[in-house]
Amino acid sequence: MGNVAQGFRDYFCRPKNTNMRISLPAVCFIWQIAMIVLFGVFIRYDEESDTHWVEHRREENITSDAENDFYFRYPSFQDVHVMIFVGFGFLMTFLKRYSFGAVGFNFLVAAFGIQWALLMQGWFHHLDLETGKISIGIESLINADFCVAGCLIAYGAVLGKVSPVQLLVLTLFGVTLFAVEEYIILTLIHARDAGGSMVIHTFGGYYGLAISWVLYRPNLHQSKRLNGSVYHSDVFAMIGTLFLWMFWPSFNGAITDHGDGQHRAAINTYLGLASTVLTTYAISSLSAKRGHLDMVHIQNATLAGGVAMGTAAEFMIQPYGSLIVGFCCGILSTLGYLVFTPFMEKHLKIQDTCGVHNLHAMPGVIGGVVGAITAAAATVDVYGKEGLINTFDFEGDFVNRTVGNQGAHQAAGVCVAIVFGIGGGAIVGTILRFPIWGDPEDDNCFDDEVYWELPEDEESIPPILEYNNHMTSKHPDMSESNFSVEQS
Amino acid sequence: MGNVAQGFRDYFCRPKNTNMRISLPAVCFIWQIAMIVLFGVFIRYDEESDTHWVEHRREENITSDAENDFYFRYPSFQDVHVMIFVGFGFLMTFLKRYSFGAVGFNFLVAAFGIQWALLMQGWFHHLDLETGKISIGIESLINADFCVAGCLIAYGAVLGKVSPVQLLVLTLFGVTLFAVEEYIILTLIHARDAGGSMVIHTFGGYYGLAISWVLYRPNLHQSKRLNGSVYHSDVFAMIGTLFLWMFWPSFNGAITDHGDGQHRAAINTYLGLASTVLTTYAISSLSAKRGHLDMVHIQNATLAGGVAMGTAAEFMIQPYGSLIVGFCCGILSTLGYLVFTPFMEKHLKIQDTCGVHNLHAMPGVIGGVVGAITAAAATVDVYGKEGLINTFDFEGDFVNRTVGNQGAHQAAGVCVAIVFGIGGGAIVGTILRFPIWGDPEDDNCFDDEVYWELPEDEESIPPILEYNNHMTSKHPDMSESNFSVEQS
Amino acid sequence: MGNVAQGFRDYFCRPKNTNMRISLPAVCFIWQIAMIVLFGVFIRYDEESDTHWVEHRREENITSDAENDFYFRYPSFQDVHVMIFVGFGFLMTFLKRYSFGAVGFNFLVAAFGIQWALLMQGWFHHLDLETGKISIGIESLINADFCVAGCLIAYGAVLGKVSPVQLLVLTLFGVTLFAVEEYIILTLIHARDAGGSMVIHTFGGYYGLAISWVLYRPNLHQSKRLNGSVYHSDVFAMIGTLFLWMFWPSFNGAITDHGDGQHRAAINTYLGLASTVLTTYAISSLSAKRGHLDMVHIQNATLAGGVAMGTAAEFMIQPYGSLIVGFCCGILSTLGYLVFTPFMEKHLKIQDTCGVHNLHAMPGVIGGVVGAITAAAATVDVYGKEGLINTFDFEGDFVNRTVGNQGAHQAAGVCVAIVFGIGGGAIVGTILRFPIWGDPEDDNCFDDEVYWELPEDEESIPPILEYNNHMTSKHPDMSESNFSVEQS
Repeated sequence: MGNVAQGFRDYFCRPKNTNMRISLPAVCFIWQIAMIVLFGVFIRYDEESDTHWVEHRREENITSDAENDFYFRYPSFQDVHVMIFVGFGFLMTFLKRYSFGAVGFNFLVAAFGIQWALLMQGWFHHLDLETGKISIGIESLINADFCVAGCLIAYGAVLGKVSPVQLLVLTLFGVTLFAVEEYIILTLIHARDAGGSMVIHTFGGYYGLAISWVLYRPNLHQSKRLNGSVYHSDVFAMIGTLFLWMFWPSFNGAITDHGDGQHRAAINTYLGLASTVLTTYAISSLSAKRGHLDMVHIQNATLAGGVAMGTAAEFMIQPYGSLIVGFCCGILSTLGYLVFTPFMEKHLKIQDTCGVHNLHAMPGVIGGVVGAITAAAATVDVYGKEGLINTFDFEGDFVNRTVGNQGAHQAAGVCVAIVFGIGGGAIVGTILRFPIWGDPEDDNCFDDEVYWELPEDEESIPPILEYNNHMTSKHPDMSESNFSVEQS
Repeated sequence: MGNVAQGFRDYFCRPKNTNMRISLPAVCFIWQIAMIVLFGVFIRYDEESDTHWVEHRREENITSDAENDFYFRYPSFQDVHVMIFVGFGFLMTFLKRYSFGAVGFNFLVAAFGIQWALLMQGWFHHLDLETGKISIGIESLINADFCVAGCLIAYGAVLGKVSPVQLLVLTLFGVTLFAVEEYIILTLIHARDAGGSMVIHTFGGYYGLAISWVLYRPNLHQSKRLNGSVYHSDVFAMIGTLFLWMFWPSFNGAITDHGDGQHRAAINTYLGLASTVLTTYAISSLSAKRGHLDMVHIQNATLAGGVAMGTAAEFMIQPYGSLIVGFCCGILSTLGYLVFTPFMEKHLKIQDTCGVHNLHAMPGVIGGVVGAITAAAATVDVYGKEGLINTFDFEGDFVNRTVGNQGAHQAAGVCVAIVFGIGGGAIVGTILRFPIWGDPEDDNCFDDEVYWELPEDEESIPPILEYNNHMTSKHPDMSESNFSVEQS
Repeated sequence: MGNVAQGFRDYFCRPKNTNMRISLPAVCFIWQIAMIVLFGVFIRYDEESDTHWVEHRREENITSDAENDFYFRYPSFQDVHVMIFVGFGFLMTFLKRYSFGAVGFNFLVAAFGIQWALLMQGWFHHLDLETGKISIGIESLINADFCVAGCLIAYGAVLGKVSPVQLLVLTLFGVTLFAVEEYIILTLIHARDAGGSMVIHTFGGYYGLAISWVLYRPNLHQSKRLNGSVYHSDVFAMIGTLFLWMFWPSFNGAITDHGDGQHRAAINTYLGLASTVLTTYAISSLSAKRGHLDMVHIQNATLAGGVAMGTAAEFMIQPYGSLIVGFCCGILSTLGYLVFTPFMEKHLKIQDTCGVHNLHAMPGVIGGVVGAITAAAATVDVYGKEGLINTFDFEGDFVNRTVGNQGAHQAAGVCVAIVFGIGGGAIVGTILRFPIWGDPEDDNCFDDEVYWELPEDEESIPPILEYNNHMTSKHPDMSESNFSVEQS
């Protein structure tokens, strides 16, 4: 299989053109117009966001506007929204010269993805076959944000090595695969996955890793000078880390059951994350000379507990259970950065810029397994009769499902997510190898200069003469922008 | 009219004194004491925030504390609050040496403005003529934040060119004008404007532009070296952009009707903004060599869709309608930055630092027009009988108003906002031209050094000798601060 | 007493070893495992977060899931969570080379502290003596965040001068002391303190100051070069300031009564903070040459009004009362930075890095006194009969307490907080003086290099030769990291 990939690689090795003046606007316009047409044909407000709500309320004997789903979910929705745009965006600003690309392409991809997700998820879950319309409400927006999260995770694996057009293609297919995979896991298999350990993180992580494997760049070391952080870019990244960390309880509880479901999901996630922080710091310190802490671990591994609580957050895993899950994930995720990421790069030819394997793929699988075990271990004694039915949705076709059976189906869900991630990523990666997408050269990765107008560097202004003398020989493209400073 | 303005200009051309050691403290103290006195005379808690709520609840047969307006609006309020202080504040940090002024003066102006707004809006809308008291609750706080937003928009047009005392004067008059204009548009004309396309953005934008026109600085090019960004200041500005973008659904839905009103406003704004992002990236890329993206566009034009959804967000514009509005605004706003801002500066003598015309004034007008059209096109079929009445508040004096009539009144609202903005701005601008306010010289604009104690520059420490040799000739004021470093 | 402290100081003066490769991981692992065990023994979900909620709801005749406490408190909880992790964390990033330590150790300490706080506060307040279990829900999470806030305040006083292990010890004891003090003030004395002016800020401030006093470093001036900000670190700190400022209404209202209690707390805090901003700017400008504003004041003193409203926020202090409190606190807090902090360092031998005395300790005491006065001045006329009982919880054992009596008990609460802060801090400080904790040398404070892997400095790359010539003589440890740049 390595040979096949190598074959593809050689075949596609041509000089690259990163000019995207035609391709990016064309893709944006075509897709946005397509979205408008499809929304016009398919998408309408649901009964809680339609002006007919006042009538619906009376008919259904709903006593208060506070019963509108909006008030149960909007605060969580806004937290999730912050995680998607500020959390993921800033988490990836850690590279010294790719902060524009990190936060800017994250923005573009997410804004496109949520529209496509509303359609794809709508077709699978909310299509009224009589009217041919999809009804959307606040829960749809949360699910669209969730869906995009899968693609943004994949972006983390290829950060700095792809063009924005490639990212949009990655997102188009990613969202499509996500919707299918989600339908299989949640509806057909009837697994529970409130915070998406399987559906979002496992899928998104392996999707990105598979793409990165197909897009392997043997000469990436030529961009090594830019594949690292500077002091302030690491502080920027902490903004992303903290907003992800703080709002993860909202993420895992955003679409769980009203009442105790959301309440319990928040508590479990809060505890899982707290525990992860301590073991992450411990392993990070243990692994370095003089016990120095490494910002890469702090920025990423501290979040693994939230990923791993994604499935079981709504279950009665108990507070200490959440702590144990976080405990293990902090250790494993940090060890992943120390051991597994270099191993993958060297031996598996997978270049994982942000280490999404350690932050999403592996903790996602752990979360799926924890969910399966917790489900299988559920008892009427702990959950109560009604509680058990509510939590696992043992209704309709699934009224006779046992908890053991449910556990097995949860485990099956993990496998589906992995298969969709790796399989989908391999196919999409192959598509992304066509030399038409404008990705950067191996010596030009992790560099905003390829796709962005950059401001002149403040720090470079003062000592102009020395600066130029040394720069011209070393960094020809930068001295150019400097000339304009002198002349202006 | 240009001659008149020029006459004013010459008349007031005297050497400037930026010392504000007396003026700023004096203004702050006098105004804050005035606020305390006026609050003491006029402002009290409303029945939902008073300890008598428990009795009120029983009398009105309210079944639950969850019916307190606080729980319907507080999450949105906090999002709006973040937009005002972090959103607007950080959006303006993009200048390389005006980040303190951007975020710091924004803070000062907003903190003063919200107090004055509670009074002004209270007198117009919530004054109990019997007791002579104004009752305030959570909705008052949101409206105060909204009111201040208008002044912060105006600040964007004059960013870097005015003193903090001028900003406080701008805010005092701005809030006053806002309250009058709002009363005319919302109460007398009875236009709907939940997210303030007209009331906030159109007014605020033109108010700032008119002030900037009166304060035109022909020699502003002398500060050109500082009128631009550096890499990290652009990343800081993205914090502002993203918090504005993410929380705009809360902004447009914060004071709409409970239930479906808030729900629908959030959905429409979410979609409008998503669409704007794609067309902004498209036009930005299309306009530059090699398709390079420009951070100025990404930071600003991506928000135009939220502005333009301000009026129609609570209407049944349908999801695809929101996408279309966002689509157009992304294009027009980005073109504004490319074409209209330079044109305004050259031919209209309007120096618009942040491009508020493209982000607020123009999209605000579009939003008002979209609102008028959507209102005029409303039907009982789409809204339902009750829904139509609720949405457009066809009650009391307005029970017989038709949707066509409503559309015309909406359009009238746009005109009122423009007139108040331009007229008010021209007058206030003239006041601000008096040479007593401590504004900076033309060669000293966009520079925090005028009003702030600045830390020594870390980056300047290392190569002290070379640095100084070159700096002394070029940047006399900076070398001074450097001397202290050597001596310390 | 100074002699005793000096004696301790001499006794413990040995060369320091900042290697924490064993100690930090050991402490993290041991404590996290202890947490898991204790949580396993003691902590369970409460009835609102347990799957039995559906039965409980029916039994108690609760009409709606919206009555679950989760929906009353979760939005405020998330705001408080942001204040703890982003607010406190980023507020302390102002130092030029201690941003990693500020935001990173804040993260570690808070994540550990919330777990220990759930246990400590649980034992005191929520232990079911029959089952031996503690039930936790959303209010417990808020209280845990509050408890940790006290320790993070203390961190502010010793920022840059202690090791992470010391911080964990400080937190372990701090949380313990907090829980006892809180039990005495809120339960035994039955004082009201919704936003923790006494319980959190007074205690936390004096706790930190007392520790800093015991850990006095006579030669701290050797680290003077790093005890200051740079331009961008001040902008980072403003992120912390603003999130604290914006969300303080949530902080003070997070655990007040449902309905009018939360509503009123938000209004009062909003107004108190707005007023503080104006007087802070006034005093800052008044105190400097040419009226220049000082970022230290803007970042910190603007928050004093929120601290001082912590006790009275839920009382009927009236809007103008809140403005007056904010007015005074802005003045006093800024004067504290100008006058008292230098005085404390010189004459009291207390080195208070962040000025927590001016931001927390003193405004906390003011808040406690304001609370006492407001309580003593309460009348049935203003509060209503039921309102008075609800607000001051005059139920059970306290049914006969008068408002005057309550005022006296509030004042007693302030004293308890001060005594616990100073006494506890002196003891814990002494423990922290043992030369085994890995704190930095006097010439190595405020430096991330001691505990963190630092990235090479981007700005140092270009003019390599000049840079090195000057650096080697001046900054030996930095030139080392520079060598690796040249070689790589």
